Amino acid sequence: MPHKLIRMQRVRPEPPSRRPIMIAIAGDSAAGKTTLTKGIAEPLGPSRVTTICVDDYHRYDRQERKGLPFTALHPDCNHIAIMEQHLQLLATGQPILKPVYDHDTGQLTRPELMEPREFVIVEGLLPLHSRLMRACFDITVYLDPPEDIRRRWKLRRDTQKRGYDVEQVRAELEAREPESAAFIRPQRGFADVVARFSPVVGRDDPPGTPLSAELMLRPTIRHPDLHGILAERDQRAIHLRLCRDEDGLPVDALHIHGYVPREESRMVEKALWAQLGVDAGYPAETLGALGNGDRSEPLAITQLLLLYHLLAAVE
Amino acid sequence: MPHKLIRMQRVRPEPPSRRPIMIAIAGDSAAGKTTLTKGIAEPLGPSRVTTICVDDYHRYDRQERKGLPFTALHPDCNHIAIMEQHLQLLATGQPILKPVYDHDTGQLTRPELMEPREFVIVEGLLPLHSRLMRACFDITVYLDPPEDIRRRWKLRRDTQKRGYDVEQVRAELEAREPESAAFIRPQRGFADVVARFSPVVGRDDPPGTPLSAELMLRPTIRHPDLHGILAERDQRAIHLRLCRDEDGLPVDALHIHGYVPREESRMVEKALWAQLGVDAGYPAETLGALGNGDRSEPLAITQLLLLYHLLAAVE
Repeated sequence: MPHKLIRMQRVRPEPPSRRPIMIAIAGDSAAGKTTLTKGIAEPLGPSRVTTICVDDYHRYDRQERKGLPFTALHPDCNHIAIMEQHLQLLATGQPILKPVYDHDTGQLTRPELMEPREFVIVEGLLPLHSRLMRACFDITVYLDPPEDIRRRWKLRRDTQKRGYDVEQVRAELEAREPESAAFIRPQRGFADVVARFSPVVGRDDPPGTPLSAELMLRPTIRHPDLHGILAERDQRAIHLRLCRDEDGLPVDALHIHGYVPREESRMVEKALWAQLGVDAGYPAETLGALGNGDRSEPLAITQLLLLYHLLAAVE
Repeated sequence: MPHKLIRMQRVRPEPPSRRPIMIAIAGDSAAGKTTLTKGIAEPLGPSRVTTICVDDYHRYDRQERKGLPFTALHPDCNHIAIMEQHLQLLATGQPILKPVYDHDTGQLTRPELMEPREFVIVEGLLPLHSRLMRACFDITVYLDPPEDIRRRWKLRRDTQKRGYDVEQVRAELEAREPESAAFIRPQRGFADVVARFSPVVGRDDPPGTPLSAELMLRPTIRHPDLHGILAERDQRAIHLRLCRDEDGLPVDALHIHGYVPREESRMVEKALWAQLGVDAGYPAETLGALGNGDRSEPLAITQLLLLYHLLAAVE
């Protein structure tokens, strides 16, 4: 009899010829990952998208973590080797039996079968943690809101939706800070796109003004020729600026202003969509939705750009 | 940037150079898989053995199965593709996050990390179901007790240990019979060793006589030269007979008689162990244990032979 490795190779079915396009959306807790993801997944439709949250790969449940010297942000608190394995399986078109962490109860529950569809969106705290994980993606995104804004978002979400009180969330933010610095924020350096939603620095906009967005577009992937597209238009709503990244390397910074009247942004969005040359209708309904019924044009434009990358990668 | 498949290949760590030896122990519900497995695993020791039960790969829990047109024996009731994937991962020395089915509650619970050690014992209802699963094993075993004995074992176990009443077990046996015939019993044809524990046909032994064993040793793997070993001894306790298998192909049938005085069997066992040329002490304590404090010499000899195969495969 041939050796089992040879036999396995012989009877293994051919790998699927079409491999999914994989995008990572990394960022700290309450950085806006789920909101960004929703607006990318919905225009593509559920039959084309598989969404995975790698926070499901927690090694310990909430009760067990209480006795441990680290928080859920620490790689040792997560099944990193299994995350790597599952991302490779998805990237090569194979199904996985994904673990499930229930954020409401803090418990690990029965795993679920996930089949990779045409696009796989992987969001979570640590999707860009290791070299092997990063190697599995076609596009990588890091959400980088200013800390004061992220803390506000986390306070609101965890008290309203996850049953914590304000003091508990504050204590958790405190406990997590060293691990945020050590493990979450370094992932920023590995993202093709870094998105920061915040008020424009130096402006004194009235309260309630929608946040603006700054997108660092690193030349690690081929971005659309926004310079060409934007040059023809009024650049009040959106403009591109060549600058140096934190590491000194050249990067395009795309600024999308939240204080611009909505109609103006929408026109830019539609023109952008049309000129991106993607063969699909403009997904007006789902882009930019903030979950509370509000809409953010800077978020819509960010999602638009990521959708462009996903659709362009297929063609 | 190189394509993600190339990047994944480049940063993937080298596969472990030593790959586990894998044995499958297949058979219907209550055929004796766990008892056989225990006596193989214990002499090797927990630091060298990983034991997996593929019945953990149930797709539906007990409650969900009530509304379905098949029983837990049906491949559609199990994550066959994931079983195949996990067996391949284990066979190549990689860890898995294995699902867990709780036989007491009938629920699917949080998965557990399993690292393959030197030997991986995979027992369950369907480990030899597909070509790819079979390709993952070095040694395959099928437990084939006569149906009346298996039903007695199942009645006893399910009423004593799993909280069913007699009528429930009878109804389940009835419901499962077509699927046993369609999916479980065909696996017999793919086993290197078929073990049948039963009274010797044609003898009228008093009640309480230990069961005998008949082991079909198929030439699909290289068995030890039992013919040579046994020729020198009194063959009352154990003898080998050349015969034709159900499919007409030549096979050695090893008969181990339960009615022989224990001391006689033990002498054969020790001689067999010594002559098998395996460099390890004879595991007298754990071989043949039936779980209820009783001991079966035919079971011990069966385990001995499988241990030989495992240890020989390493060398």
